[in-house]
Amino acid sequence: MPQFSDRYRHVRHATLQSVEGLSDADLTVQSADFASPGKWHLAHTTWFFEQFVLAPHEPAYRVFDAHFTFLFNSYYDAVGARHQRSQRGLLTRPTLDVVLAYRRHVDQAMQAMLARPLSAELSALIELGLAHEQQHQELILTDLLHLFAQNPLRPAARPGTHATPLAVSAAPTTATQWVDFDACQTTIGEAPEHFHFDHEGPRHRVLLRPFRLARRPVSNRDWLAFIDAGGYQNPSHWLSDGWTAVVTQGWQTPLYWERTPDDLGWQHMSLAGLQPLSLDAPVAHVSYFEADAYARWVGKRLPTEFEWEHASGGLPVTGNFVEDGMFQPLESTSPGPLLQMYGDVWEWTASPFTAYPGFRKAAGGVGEYNGKFMNGQYVLRGGSCVSPQSHLRASYRNFFQPEHRWQFTGLRLAEDA
Amino acid sequence: MPQFSDRYRHVRHATLQSVEGLSDADLTVQSADFASPGKWHLAHTTWFFEQFVLAPHEPAYRVFDAHFTFLFNSYYDAVGARHQRSQRGLLTRPTLDVVLAYRRHVDQAMQAMLARPLSAELSALIELGLAHEQQHQELILTDLLHLFAQNPLRPAARPGTHATPLAVSAAPTTATQWVDFDACQTTIGEAPEHFHFDHEGPRHRVLLRPFRLARRPVSNRDWLAFIDAGGYQNPSHWLSDGWTAVVTQGWQTPLYWERTPDDLGWQHMSLAGLQPLSLDAPVAHVSYFEADAYARWVGKRLPTEFEWEHASGGLPVTGNFVEDGMFQPLESTSPGPLLQMYGDVWEWTASPFTAYPGFRKAAGGVGEYNGKFMNGQYVLRGGSCVSPQSHLRASYRNFFQPEHRWQFTGLRLAEDA
Amino acid sequence: MPQFSDRYRHVRHATLQSVEGLSDADLTVQSADFASPGKWHLAHTTWFFEQFVLAPHEPAYRVFDAHFTFLFNSYYDAVGARHQRSQRGLLTRPTLDVVLAYRRHVDQAMQAMLARPLSAELSALIELGLAHEQQHQELILTDLLHLFAQNPLRPAARPGTHATPLAVSAAPTTATQWVDFDACQTTIGEAPEHFHFDHEGPRHRVLLRPFRLARRPVSNRDWLAFIDAGGYQNPSHWLSDGWTAVVTQGWQTPLYWERTPDDLGWQHMSLAGLQPLSLDAPVAHVSYFEADAYARWVGKRLPTEFEWEHASGGLPVTGNFVEDGMFQPLESTSPGPLLQMYGDVWEWTASPFTAYPGFRKAAGGVGEYNGKFMNGQYVLRGGSCVSPQSHLRASYRNFFQPEHRWQFTGLRLAEDA
Amino acid sequence: MPQFSDRYRHVRHATLQSVEGLSDADLTVQSADFASPGKWHLAHTTWFFEQFVLAPHEPAYRVFDAHFTFLFNSYYDAVGARHQRSQRGLLTRPTLDVVLAYRRHVDQAMQAMLARPLSAELSALIELGLAHEQQHQELILTDLLHLFAQNPLRPAARPGTHATPLAVSAAPTTATQWVDFDACQTTIGEAPEHFHFDHEGPRHRVLLRPFRLARRPVSNRDWLAFIDAGGYQNPSHWLSDGWTAVVTQGWQTPLYWERTPDDLGWQHMSLAGLQPLSLDAPVAHVSYFEADAYARWVGKRLPTEFEWEHASGGLPVTGNFVEDGMFQPLESTSPGPLLQMYGDVWEWTASPFTAYPGFRKAAGGVGEYNGKFMNGQYVLRGGSCVSPQSHLRASYRNFFQPEHRWQFTGLRLAEDA
Repeated sequence: MPQFSDRYRHVRHATLQSVEGLSDADLTVQSADFASPGKWHLAHTTWFFEQFVLAPHEPAYRVFDAHFTFLFNSYYDAVGARHQRSQRGLLTRPTLDVVLAYRRHVDQAMQAMLARPLSAELSALIELGLAHEQQHQELILTDLLHLFAQNPLRPAARPGTHATPLAVSAAPTTATQWVDFDACQTTIGEAPEHFHFDHEGPRHRVLLRPFRLARRPVSNRDWLAFIDAGGYQNPSHWLSDGWTAVVTQGWQTPLYWERTPDDLGWQHMSLAGLQPLSLDAPVAHVSYFEADAYARWVGKRLPTEFEWEHASGGLPVTGNFVEDGMFQPLESTSPGPLLQMYGDVWEWTASPFTAYPGFRKAAGGVGEYNGKFMNGQYVLRGGSCVSPQSHLRASYRNFFQPEHRWQFTGLRLAEDA
Repeated sequence: MPQFSDRYRHVRHATLQSVEGLSDADLTVQSADFASPGKWHLAHTTWFFEQFVLAPHEPAYRVFDAHFTFLFNSYYDAVGARHQRSQRGLLTRPTLDVVLAYRRHVDQAMQAMLARPLSAELSALIELGLAHEQQHQELILTDLLHLFAQNPLRPAARPGTHATPLAVSAAPTTATQWVDFDACQTTIGEAPEHFHFDHEGPRHRVLLRPFRLARRPVSNRDWLAFIDAGGYQNPSHWLSDGWTAVVTQGWQTPLYWERTPDDLGWQHMSLAGLQPLSLDAPVAHVSYFEADAYARWVGKRLPTEFEWEHASGGLPVTGNFVEDGMFQPLESTSPGPLLQMYGDVWEWTASPFTAYPGFRKAAGGVGEYNGKFMNGQYVLRGGSCVSPQSHLRASYRNFFQPEHRWQFTGLRLAEDA
Repeated sequence: MPQFSDRYRHVRHATLQSVEGLSDADLTVQSADFASPGKWHLAHTTWFFEQFVLAPHEPAYRVFDAHFTFLFNSYYDAVGARHQRSQRGLLTRPTLDVVLAYRRHVDQAMQAMLARPLSAELSALIELGLAHEQQHQELILTDLLHLFAQNPLRPAARPGTHATPLAVSAAPTTATQWVDFDACQTTIGEAPEHFHFDHEGPRHRVLLRPFRLARRPVSNRDWLAFIDAGGYQNPSHWLSDGWTAVVTQGWQTPLYWERTPDDLGWQHMSLAGLQPLSLDAPVAHVSYFEADAYARWVGKRLPTEFEWEHASGGLPVTGNFVEDGMFQPLESTSPGPLLQMYGDVWEWTASPFTAYPGFRKAAGGVGEYNGKFMNGQYVLRGGSCVSPQSHLRASYRNFFQPEHRWQFTGLRLAEDA
Repeated sequence: MPQFSDRYRHVRHATLQSVEGLSDADLTVQSADFASPGKWHLAHTTWFFEQFVLAPHEPAYRVFDAHFTFLFNSYYDAVGARHQRSQRGLLTRPTLDVVLAYRRHVDQAMQAMLARPLSAELSALIELGLAHEQQHQELILTDLLHLFAQNPLRPAARPGTHATPLAVSAAPTTATQWVDFDACQTTIGEAPEHFHFDHEGPRHRVLLRPFRLARRPVSNRDWLAFIDAGGYQNPSHWLSDGWTAVVTQGWQTPLYWERTPDDLGWQHMSLAGLQPLSLDAPVAHVSYFEADAYARWVGKRLPTEFEWEHASGGLPVTGNFVEDGMFQPLESTSPGPLLQMYGDVWEWTASPFTAYPGFRKAAGGVGEYNGKFMNGQYVLRGGSCVSPQSHLRASYRNFFQPEHRWQFTGLRLAEDA
């Protein structure tokens, strides 16, 4: 299966590219319980292939290091005991070199396997492994940004990007433009014959009432108006839990915003270090609570995930992705009707993350993939500036707790038509 | 409006009945952050009428005590500062006598108002006040049960009930019987012309796929089978957050279950003190996480709130309510097809508590009633053995966080047909 | 032993006097982990006689309620399991009436015992029980003050006192006057033949260098100068742990101080409710950390407990005690050389609470009385305005953690001569 | 001042030796709030010379990086803001190479200064800087041990040591041998003319009663007897706070002890990785609470720091120190009367860490060196197997909170003669 083998090589290589130039120390430290060290991501994605593909299906496979089953299991209870999540950053050993050797060891065995005909089941597992690796490619970058943002030196994790500051446009916010959608019954979820995660199915019909979507995501300029209007000071815009988060965590702006040294403007911490804030780029690093409060403040609402999926039907997956190497949301200059549905920022939807009708989790360890997280999270759609383009599709459901802000998360407004 | 006046008197009186025979101390102490003292409930329900009805609409009304605006506001930010929730149990003053005088003061002013013709707006506010009072009638009893359960003496808050222990049936669990429902489009939400809380509307259409509901709620006997099968020891049944709750909170049984002194059986703490567990009564005091895990363990699922509402369409609101004075779930001996849809235990549904399409919160303080809690909670349906019968209806949506167990919360199974 | 019987009656009666006029609720609620409910104190002091005197030494004694052994044990591990300290405030049952009946039951048995000749051992145990009861008399009042201070109504626990506000003197602080002491070897600790707690012995010799003690405790007026000089803003005066307490607990003044409504002056919460601050009364409700920082700020130090005991040698135990019914520290108008060594406020010393050379804890439960607390606390000397006068003596060592402020704790300055 | 220059070079070099062979990652991660990363120690000790010696006294000195003043200040409030202690492990930048360059930059400037005649004040500051560096040499090793002990791979931080497991002697514990000391007045504290930390003075006289010291520290073999006798299960041996630590932290053994894989014996995590426990070596990694409980259990006590200092008078500072490269406590085979007073393990004393009579902290930043920690800690004496030999003396007072166990802390018994 030569093209499978090429894709495997390509995906695995992209992971390494994302950490190029970083030290063992950069990739060892964990900056928060919800984030993981880069080295851990490098090893865990490898462990996935070892644990679910090679060990059960390749009799001749020799496990690289028996300790790694314990160390690099993320949350699979069926696999056995695992290292505590909050302790991941204490593993100065194995060193980065050893983890890279682990990757090579598994890659070699995988390539041998991929040279042979594969059962459908095994192919599906490997596809899942690659999709899993792509998810962690995004996490590597968002976790690195979080770590580097804790450092008072504000160092750049990807220093090549944006050596030249972006121009800061002085134009005022323009009125939101809307795209209309009629009432309909629509089909939600990916077709069974295409690869998708379990929670993107089963396909099913839903009723939609007439609605409108904003042409583009909410921008930094829009968000400044919310700040200036006292949005972070007025509980009436907020969910009760959201207001508690504002007060207890002291939110005053999106995560990573800082005043410029002259106190006249705003800059933000990015993967290229501190940078001027590009006013017409989509706002990023806002929580669901902030997105929801903003929407209420302007008298609109967030779209449901069904509205989003319906609206994106037939749109090409184009936009600002990790392959573009910008590593931050950008202003769009495209003339199309719906802009930036894919890439730039994940868009919070109003939909709690739940099972689609008829959903059953798979048997065995991989059954723990998504089903056990169907509680207390919200669905996000469309991918971000650090998502791999080939990873995304209209049915793709990302999900995070409503207080999280370290991903590239923004929003697009909706309203009833 | 004589019958309105009578109903006001009746609802207010029922509140007092629920605390009859209890001391100032019993009604002052707060046993957990999520619970409130009885005295606080007595005062807060009164404050609601003073704050939203009398003060703005009765020019001659004299506020009973200006401090009470601060002390007995629950969560209405628009009203101003409020006493911290976790500190409610420190208010040994005002004494119970003063709080009862406060109730009489407000009742007198309300009765004077009710003797006159009322605007539709005012009538709606008073209806809301009475519905609000009925909600707190249930909370008074569940909060008292929680308080008395913390006392190693296990005293009875409502000692008259069940002086004779219930017979414990030795019959084995019978197979679940099912009631079938066809695929359909159905209407959800209360009609605008009937009183309902804001979150029970707007009415809207939803698609239902064919499904089945269990004839009766899951019983204590059923639950013992789950315990005996190691249900609390096996993470594979549980949501990830649910398993964390099992481990960190040490859940092994529903709340309030204890071994009998001979260690051969089970008893449970009730409003009548420690009592033998009635095996064929609906299980109560289980969290959403437990309900969800149980359903997965038996290969079924929880119903959605839409399935529940559709199934209950046209059923009379009959069952075991607070007016029956049993104060605990009972075995049903009725011959009907769907048993105990109302009363006995609130039934967890699979539906996160969200806004219905087109929902907008009301202006002003009462707008904070439900809308700001539409996050992180699950909908429960049907009422319990401590709900007032007149408070319930098919569209009624109760909601709690998925880890809470101190309400009379149980479950009914569903499955795809 | 008629006078022993009288003294027993007198001490026990004084306990009841301290809660006169308070409700069951007032005496049931616990306002902090470090405080206990009044009802608990009433029962625990009674339990002490039942547990250590009656049960082991009075064969005919019938235990009042077997549950009380569990409920009202404070910290005696040797006695068996005990109710968790932080849960003491949840015991609405037994009611106050039952606790008072418990007191009468034990008093009756004790009086019968006291009518007979007693062994020296038994006499010593009863003496200990009475001293123990007196300690709790003070705690009842300080714990009530803490509870009532949490109530936004600021009610008076002892309302008769100080109906007339104290005059607030406008005179400036006068220079500290000093009393000199020569270098010496002195004897520390109570003589074995007099009643004392175990930690007041063994008697031993210590070396003292020449020193001076301030004639009177630091006053509220003195403390205002510290506040005005930014004492609470400057870490250089503070121990490291003290500064952490200032920052994390937001200390800006002694506990219970509040601005007057006109924001021009200070009032303080007292057992008589909110009162104007008497500027020339000793400052109270300061922690060790504050006392130590103050002393460093004025270029002095706290005395050691040995200096204090040596200086108090031969002074009569006179001053403002609980029997005076003032329940707050007062300005002294006495002409003596060393003023207010006893009463008004406990004086923090520089001495960590440690064992005297040769100290061994007693066998059995009462051995846990003081020895196991010889860590992390500081010694205070002299008693307060809510201490019983007969409870105090020169060798008396009170002790608290350095961050505590809810006792009547102040300070007297010392310096090297 | 050639020999000063040599000593500077020697001490600074020894610091680098302690981290030889470790990676940037090993030296970047922080395993607990109370520990610091190796890289931080390397930089902070350098900052001390820059901040207190070069910047104020060397006009031509060019600060290496202005950010480092903020990043590598430990706790000196007078110097200005500082990086939060718990965040030290997030600094992947500056890299190890940059920190080493910082060291060279400062060393160069220091050597230039040391080539010139120095004022007494400046000499004293540099002496303090070297003593400070030696303190951190010990901390580097204890913090590394703590970090490596969190790693399930149990890697060796100093792998060369003890490649051959120590013989485990089967001989039973021998009876404690004692050395007697008469009652006396003795002088405590270092002579002003010798270098010492501020808290080792002023010199003063204390009274000692007759006492005995055990000939050697308590051994691992002794400690096993305590474990086997249920020492960790019986609250009667423990201080109240100590028992709380036992229960809440689950102490069952000294820190770093583990069962051998065959469950028949004990091994311990050391700087050389997991090793068999040497039964006749002094027990290490016990808290004050454990040391105190052990002493009570055997009917003895801990010595006071004055007894220890008196007993060590005139003894040579010989023993097992960091220069020996063993990095763990060893059995002594010496014939002397008092064994292992220096080296092997720090010995907990019964003395809370307080100021000696007449102590005043120095003006300026270095005044914060020890004085502000004189609260809640206990004095330890004698140094350990990872202390530099030249750093120790009879008057040396180390101090830690009583719950800490990550230092090489043990105990020696005392009793009244």
